[in-house]
Amino acid sequence: MRACGIVTLTTDFGLDDAYVAQLHGALLRAAPSPAQGALRIVDVSHAVPPGDATAALFLSECAWPAFPAGSVHVLVVDPGVGSDRGLVAIETAEAWLVGPDTGVLSSGLPASMRPAAATARSPLAGGMAAADIRETPLAAAEVSRTFHGRDLMAPVAAAIASGRGLESVGPAVSVVTVAAPLASPVIDGAGEGRILHVDRFGNAITSFRASQAGAAFEVEVGGRTVAGPAATYAAGGTAVVALPSSSGYVELALANGSAAEALGVGRGDPVRLRRRSSGG
Amino acid sequence: MRACGIVTLTTDFGLDDAYVAQLHGALLRAAPSPAQGALRIVDVSHAVPPGDATAALFLSECAWPAFPAGSVHVLVVDPGVGSDRGLVAIETAEAWLVGPDTGVLSSGLPASMRPAAATARSPLAGGMAAADIRETPLAAAEVSRTFHGRDLMAPVAAAIASGRGLESVGPAVSVVTVAAPLASPVIDGAGEGRILHVDRFGNAITSFRASQAGAAFEVEVGGRTVAGPAATYAAGGTAVVALPSSSGYVELALANGSAAEALGVGRGDPVRLRRRSSGG
Amino acid sequence: MRACGIVTLTTDFGLDDAYVAQLHGALLRAAPSPAQGALRIVDVSHAVPPGDATAALFLSECAWPAFPAGSVHVLVVDPGVGSDRGLVAIETAEAWLVGPDTGVLSSGLPASMRPAAATARSPLAGGMAAADIRETPLAAAEVSRTFHGRDLMAPVAAAIASGRGLESVGPAVSVVTVAAPLASPVIDGAGEGRILHVDRFGNAITSFRASQAGAAFEVEVGGRTVAGPAATYAAGGTAVVALPSSSGYVELALANGSAAEALGVGRGDPVRLRRRSSGG
Repeated sequence: MRACGIVTLTTDFGLDDAYVAQLHGALLRAAPSPAQGALRIVDVSHAVPPGDATAALFLSECAWPAFPAGSVHVLVVDPGVGSDRGLVAIETAEAWLVGPDTGVLSSGLPASMRPAAATARSPLAGGMAAADIRETPLAAAEVSRTFHGRDLMAPVAAAIASGRGLESVGPAVSVVTVAAPLASPVIDGAGEGRILHVDRFGNAITSFRASQAGAAFEVEVGGRTVAGPAATYAAGGTAVVALPSSSGYVELALANGSAAEALGVGRGDPVRLRRRSSGG
Repeated sequence: MRACGIVTLTTDFGLDDAYVAQLHGALLRAAPSPAQGALRIVDVSHAVPPGDATAALFLSECAWPAFPAGSVHVLVVDPGVGSDRGLVAIETAEAWLVGPDTGVLSSGLPASMRPAAATARSPLAGGMAAADIRETPLAAAEVSRTFHGRDLMAPVAAAIASGRGLESVGPAVSVVTVAAPLASPVIDGAGEGRILHVDRFGNAITSFRASQAGAAFEVEVGGRTVAGPAATYAAGGTAVVALPSSSGYVELALANGSAAEALGVGRGDPVRLRRRSSGG
Repeated sequence: MRACGIVTLTTDFGLDDAYVAQLHGALLRAAPSPAQGALRIVDVSHAVPPGDATAALFLSECAWPAFPAGSVHVLVVDPGVGSDRGLVAIETAEAWLVGPDTGVLSSGLPASMRPAAATARSPLAGGMAAADIRETPLAAAEVSRTFHGRDLMAPVAAAIASGRGLESVGPAVSVVTVAAPLASPVIDGAGEGRILHVDRFGNAITSFRASQAGAAFEVEVGGRTVAGPAATYAAGGTAVVALPSSSGYVELALANGSAAEALGVGRGDPVRLRRRSSGG
């Protein structure tokens, strides 16, 4: 794969501190010609709740596939910074991933590598490569104890986005930490899941993949049963609808209102899915 | 007009979800050479309150004129997504506008097209062109029911910004939906208006154009009368002043404080304007 | 020094209004070839509390050194806009600074120019240059009374970033307003300081430079004594630790929690530092 020059940033830094700017600065300092536009930096989001790996997995799963092949995705949700947690750069068939080796990069990894539950150490799938960047020769002159995003990940990401190979950023590794998929299994048309995320509009995204929910289903949530799929947000009038979200999950929504509020549910709350005959 | 390569984004997505990143990604995927810097994406604001067309009109009216001619302005405030609302790309004398055909793009349209009140279907002014992009051939491979910003508007905007003509994005249309101006009429030196917006500083921007308020005026608001125009924020000392805002409206402001709080007013509250003799 | 084409923006505008977009637009309009990527605009942060010069000094001190030499740093925290406060562009050995001549640009100035307390008028250090840009020939066609960031600073910054010399932006000045350093003095291994900043994670950054705190020290804060330096956030287990922050100050932190909350302290609260023998 050829780097396309794009570096995306996903962090739990918020926008009130100088940390995001320091990441941008470190990327630009490391890029061969900062002003030429050869490096394009895109902020995915910096609103991951502090240290929340699950939120980071959801956000990156939604965002990363939208970018061109050859992008470098940096994810800095790193509560273990300074400890002995690993730090890796991984090359997949579509992109490079740079971040802590804690499983938090898993949304960019092939399904075949992901364990059924929790996290596991998994060998890289065929055609992939990875490097341990904890002691990368590209590190900042002085590496802080608390900001490896700036001092290690940014220079590595800039180098990869500029076309340098993984061998130049650190020693090869063949096994990385991988987290289970966020999606809940649907077996014989039924599943037990949870609310993965409530978005700004109050849409509640469940952990069921729409592709597994079938042509007709119902969702039990907050003591209510919602039949789906609806064709549009507006289809339910003033009632909550269930429909495929723009990221492929079953989503509960309310036209011009908050489904989460109407249902009295929040992130993590349990949800049940049941297929139904389409006439049901 | 020639595209200048700039695409601006104004949405009600907030910055906590992956939606803004997905827009950026879709634009970059659709651009011919993502890394070359040929496309420049600028976030105007993603803080439009969900579905709030009036706020979007105010924000875009302030922001869009600041950009170079030939920019492509994308506005995704689209509560009717998935319904039969129209979706258009419009070429004006200064820019292209891409978004729902609900009137929400009106800040970029010539004054001659805008109705006196509410919204109306208006023929395009001379020299303009528009296309219906609901079934654009540039659409994403799979079009979601809930995110036409990503699946339809972004590829259209990227194509236009890259120099492709409107004829390539969808069939021509000659009539679009247009909303009334936000500005309140001032007749014989008097007008009844409202607070259009309260900004982060507590400045309360009224719906009166400063150019219509005359050389000396007074504003009745929250039971108080404020004479204007003041020369600067500081001119009033610890009192609220009225002066031309940076976007051309009469603005109520308080040096080192919040005028909105001092006056006890918020967005939508009524305001009266009266011209006065400059000695008054 | 040669401009590298980067312009950074630090303001108290927030992200809900159109002001940041207007800055971007004004920069792009002033740049010779907006679409070519010759100008790169980076948002440092727009979350400076309204008019808060001290917060701006801290943020810029953390962020600016991260950028490549030859960057142009624009800082718009300008409660005196429209008054007779000065407005300057300053060339240092590393960068250009553009903003109000109130001392708020001081983080980019050499230590030798900074007074011990408050603000003072200081002659430029050797090799530096500055221009008064209040009446810059590059001003917008119509200069507002309330938004000099857009109407004066942006066109000046774009010109400098595009390679134009300071002589083209306004008349030379040789004395500018400079604020005292944020760092508190440490004398004979002891100092009285304050909490400079509490970040999103609840880390409380003190006003003591880590380089002055010595190999072993203790911090008195909120009625507690914290020994330092710790090697990592995690080193303290469930207790607050003191360690060098990523910007070089002594920072109080709590693994997976908020040190500020645990200590019951906030920005501005007093802190004492005392060196200790490393065995202590």
